[in-house]
Amino acid sequence: MRVCIIGSTGHVGYVLQDIGKTDADIVGISSGSEGEDVLGLYEEVKRLSPETRVFGDYRHMLDELRPEVAVVACHFADHAKATIEALGRGIHVFTEKPMATTLADLDRVWKAYREANVHLAAMFGIRYQPCFLTAWDKVRHGAIGTIRLMTAQKSYKLGRRAGFFRERRSYGGTIPWVGIHAIDWLHWFSGERFVSVFASHSSLHNRGHGELEVTANCHFNLTNEVIASASMDYLRPDNAHSHDDDRLRLVGTRGIMEVRNGSAYLLNADNDGSKSLPLLPTRGIFADFVAQIRGEGRCLVSAEDSFYATEAALLARQSADEGQLITFGREFRRSDDLASG
Amino acid sequence: MRVCIIGSTGHVGYVLQDIGKTDADIVGISSGSEGEDVLGLYEEVKRLSPETRVFGDYRHMLDELRPEVAVVACHFADHAKATIEALGRGIHVFTEKPMATTLADLDRVWKAYREANVHLAAMFGIRYQPCFLTAWDKVRHGAIGTIRLMTAQKSYKLGRRAGFFRERRSYGGTIPWVGIHAIDWLHWFSGERFVSVFASHSSLHNRGHGELEVTANCHFNLTNEVIASASMDYLRPDNAHSHDDDRLRLVGTRGIMEVRNGSAYLLNADNDGSKSLPLLPTRGIFADFVAQIRGEGRCLVSAEDSFYATEAALLARQSADEGQLITFGREFRRSDDLASG
Repeated sequence: MRVCIIGSTGHVGYVLQDIGKTDADIVGISSGSEGEDVLGLYEEVKRLSPETRVFGDYRHMLDELRPEVAVVACHFADHAKATIEALGRGIHVFTEKPMATTLADLDRVWKAYREANVHLAAMFGIRYQPCFLTAWDKVRHGAIGTIRLMTAQKSYKLGRRAGFFRERRSYGGTIPWVGIHAIDWLHWFSGERFVSVFASHSSLHNRGHGELEVTANCHFNLTNEVIASASMDYLRPDNAHSHDDDRLRLVGTRGIMEVRNGSAYLLNADNDGSKSLPLLPTRGIFADFVAQIRGEGRCLVSAEDSFYATEAALLARQSADEGQLITFGREFRRSDDLASG
Repeated sequence: MRVCIIGSTGHVGYVLQDIGKTDADIVGISSGSEGEDVLGLYEEVKRLSPETRVFGDYRHMLDELRPEVAVVACHFADHAKATIEALGRGIHVFTEKPMATTLADLDRVWKAYREANVHLAAMFGIRYQPCFLTAWDKVRHGAIGTIRLMTAQKSYKLGRRAGFFRERRSYGGTIPWVGIHAIDWLHWFSGERFVSVFASHSSLHNRGHGELEVTANCHFNLTNEVIASASMDYLRPDNAHSHDDDRLRLVGTRGIMEVRNGSAYLLNADNDGSKSLPLLPTRGIFADFVAQIRGEGRCLVSAEDSFYATEAALLARQSADEGQLITFGREFRRSDDLASG
């Protein structure tokens, strides 16, 4: 299976980590955005796939190499364009999130996806971390009953971000870039649909990062009166032990599940919540993606989930921009499309 | 100093714990609500103040005993009425929260307070827990810089609640009863004013508790683009080690402070957040209240804070009831009143 990489900005590491476990080969690399440098990535990839070639234009690369899979991970506002180019050529797409940074772009990707008969997944790789996988497995098997309330947290170190993070036009915003993971968890764990969102974000105190928002919170109402909240910040101190501090707390009718510090904690009639659960072994998101294309498995991240979380993140950003409650609706049409498509 | 207790429902324990440290005496007890039983409390109080008398009507008690202090802790919807009766007699009031369960009642209490020249404080006793006191002291001294994002949690066991919890009319709602503490922390720690709130709550899966909401979340915008979220639930499993699981996370420009599990954790340039801070010694809220009346100290909970958190909780409940964003405004007038009053 031939893989081309468009861009060197996002979590291409998911591909590099897994490529050796698959029969796939990285045959080409191209930048996906104006000014994006792919030489560092090229050096890395050459060690895994010595025949890899570098291209100046990803459309030429796709036309010439005709890969089965395109990995899209350029500047965030360019994900949609590159994905559409790949889908239009009947190529499976593994794309960095957010898949699009505007609703109009997301609709274009959706249209291209519906017309192509391929697999598509966004890089919601945090689902594959053992702590999240373990929590999800337990919750799915009824460990906390029915989920009623969810609280999610994304906290990152800011450091010095590349220039394109400083403009909404190229970056897309912190809710779609950072918060989208948390938004994805809310839907993935509960199985509920989003009904409305009220969100806020602020760029104050962003240490010279232009328009980049460093704090945000999204309040979601979901079906069946499930309530959820997700906070995100870039204010994690530099000396913290890890880059990020991801957390999730799920309150159910029969117990409470928490993911924190790379561990999962269960509080229910059988567990007092003080000890972390034994973790399931990790799996690779890209290996799973390839397996699904081969008809040999199923990636935890479906195309529908990828579109759904992106749309929810973009509507949350809109709520924060406008200071207004946003009611979902678009996505139900999309869901119908998918069912009938 | 003579103290009368109206009601036996709320945290009268604050008074019983501290009374021996003060020169105050509990001279009378009366129920504050239809059907409220005070005999159990009477037995307890007799051990501390053998001369205590029981009354059938608290107005008669206040008229006959003329206490300096009234403690109000009856069914929540009756707090306002009892407080107004005490204030009208020039008696200092230490009242269970929420001080009122409707905005109209809160305005009546405010009017009575402005006309009386006494001290009033709501039982925001959680401020006095060593973990919160320690965190507050550090934050006040700049340990995390300027607060930008706050997340608070209140989680309780439900058990079997008394009948009056099952009706909004007598209970007032979970946001004003449980959530008000978290709402109080947001203002107390940040010093910011509330700008707007969007909140949700649900009574589903409340195990036969009528209208009582068992899950809720409140999203607040505060001045200076500070963002905050507070969740509350009654779904803490029966076998959990403690009745409650109070948490607070404060993200600042120079660090992150967390209160969790009775401890305070500081992550900043000097602390890696892994060790809990040495805790300040506890203080008693009622002892402080009495000291303030004597002119010998200052209670951490001011009258203005008590009104402010109550109003914020009632507006949050209104938002949840209506599914609408609520903008603050009333309280600014109140604040002006206070400044000029």
